[in-house]
Amino acid sequence: MKSRGHRRAEHKRGNPDAPAIIYGWHSVLAALQNPRRRVRKLLATANALQRLQEIGIAGLPEPAEPRDIDRLAGAGAVHQGIALLADPLPEPDLLDLEDARLVIVLDQVTDPHNVGAILRSAAAFGCAALILAERHGPQESGVLAKAASGGLEHVALVRVKNLARAMDQLGDMAFERLGLDSEHAEPVDALRAGEKTAIVLGAEGKGMRRLTREKCDRLVRLDVPGPIKSLNVSNAAALALYALTRPPAA
Amino acid sequence: MKSRGHRRAEHKRGNPDAPAIIYGWHSVLAALQNPRRRVRKLLATANALQRLQEIGIAGLPEPAEPRDIDRLAGAGAVHQGIALLADPLPEPDLLDLEDARLVIVLDQVTDPHNVGAILRSAAAFGCAALILAERHGPQESGVLAKAASGGLEHVALVRVKNLARAMDQLGDMAFERLGLDSEHAEPVDALRAGEKTAIVLGAEGKGMRRLTREKCDRLVRLDVPGPIKSLNVSNAAALALYALTRPPAA
Repeated sequence: MKSRGHRRAEHKRGNPDAPAIIYGWHSVLAALQNPRRRVRKLLATANALQRLQEIGIAGLPEPAEPRDIDRLAGAGAVHQGIALLADPLPEPDLLDLEDARLVIVLDQVTDPHNVGAILRSAAAFGCAALILAERHGPQESGVLAKAASGGLEHVALVRVKNLARAMDQLGDMAFERLGLDSEHAEPVDALRAGEKTAIVLGAEGKGMRRLTREKCDRLVRLDVPGPIKSLNVSNAAALALYALTRPPAA
Repeated sequence: MKSRGHRRAEHKRGNPDAPAIIYGWHSVLAALQNPRRRVRKLLATANALQRLQEIGIAGLPEPAEPRDIDRLAGAGAVHQGIALLADPLPEPDLLDLEDARLVIVLDQVTDPHNVGAILRSAAAFGCAALILAERHGPQESGVLAKAASGGLEHVALVRVKNLARAMDQLGDMAFERLGLDSEHAEPVDALRAGEKTAIVLGAEGKGMRRLTREKCDRLVRLDVPGPIKSLNVSNAAALALYALTRPPAA
């Protein structure tokens, strides 16, 4: 393990040299197809290897024993006979996002299933990055990568030290910061994403923290007609992405 | 445990007399507020009981020991200091849905996190029922109820013996059956739910089975602009519900 200067180590959550474990067909395939992803080890069944070969993936290893795949993916992981160990992707800084048009900011959303599902929808809607506080977000993990179903290879995870300052920076970079908040008056249906948009979501129940909310340019709500008014955070993110990016009225 | 006739037992999956375990604040509160839900036992911390009292819930028990709540909710469950044991809700038959305007049909979607999140979005969008095959759906479980965040109290779970026959029955009941399928030409954005609509979703990756697909009146797709084309099934369900139920063009 390389040693790093204190300031650098402080700037990233966890150990940036710790390898990423990625399992499940879609997640592994997307990692293998990502030229920026350095794979250290691939473990796959003969069946999975044949599917990879048919797709044209080169440099495949010998088939692995199922128990070795189990061990790499971790207890209870639904790995579908394929798992790999890779270097984590380089995490860009916020300032690297100057050409991005659409990003998502998460305020204290921690469940890796939810963050993974949000990454997947973010990739489906062409988001450039998912921005979260290094202290309150999940580590890049197998659960997150599996739920992201390849989204991790397409959407940059940007972990920042201070989310409020990141909101300021996004404003300086000309992003319109749209915060989802069930108690506010502007329905998301009436809006479209502009040139540069940051969609900001808080944790379920609690919503955004006060300071995060205050940094938003606009607060928007998702209207639902039924007896339950709050949605799962990944469902809410998908709806906001859809509503803000859909073409002008049909 | 009551004895039931063979045909009746055959018609329901699992043991209909097995109690439901429900935990987590929103799920338990919704169960306590549901007049159709018969609660057998409520276990809650002093804090949770005080919140319930403030809301006006009557007949509360003494505070429970945290370890007893752990034991009821099951290992690793995030119960937030509150759990209950209740009779499962009566499951209506398909024919009981004659007044329903919007239902969801799931073909081999089994992950209780996903089915729970779909139930929650279904409740948010005013769906009357979630219809699934008794052999291929999840049992009403704590994980499902927690992910549904109260949705289980508002949306009927209808387990049918044969999904293809249920699709026929829905047609006879004048439901327009809209199947979500990534490979078909009609974009969901162009549609609105009619008088009676059944939204049909298959498992991620595999999609609907052939016979289910053939029973649909229309096949619709969700268009996404990004590099990943498939969504988490609960995210896809939420988008379909939103797209089909939103008011005419803004």
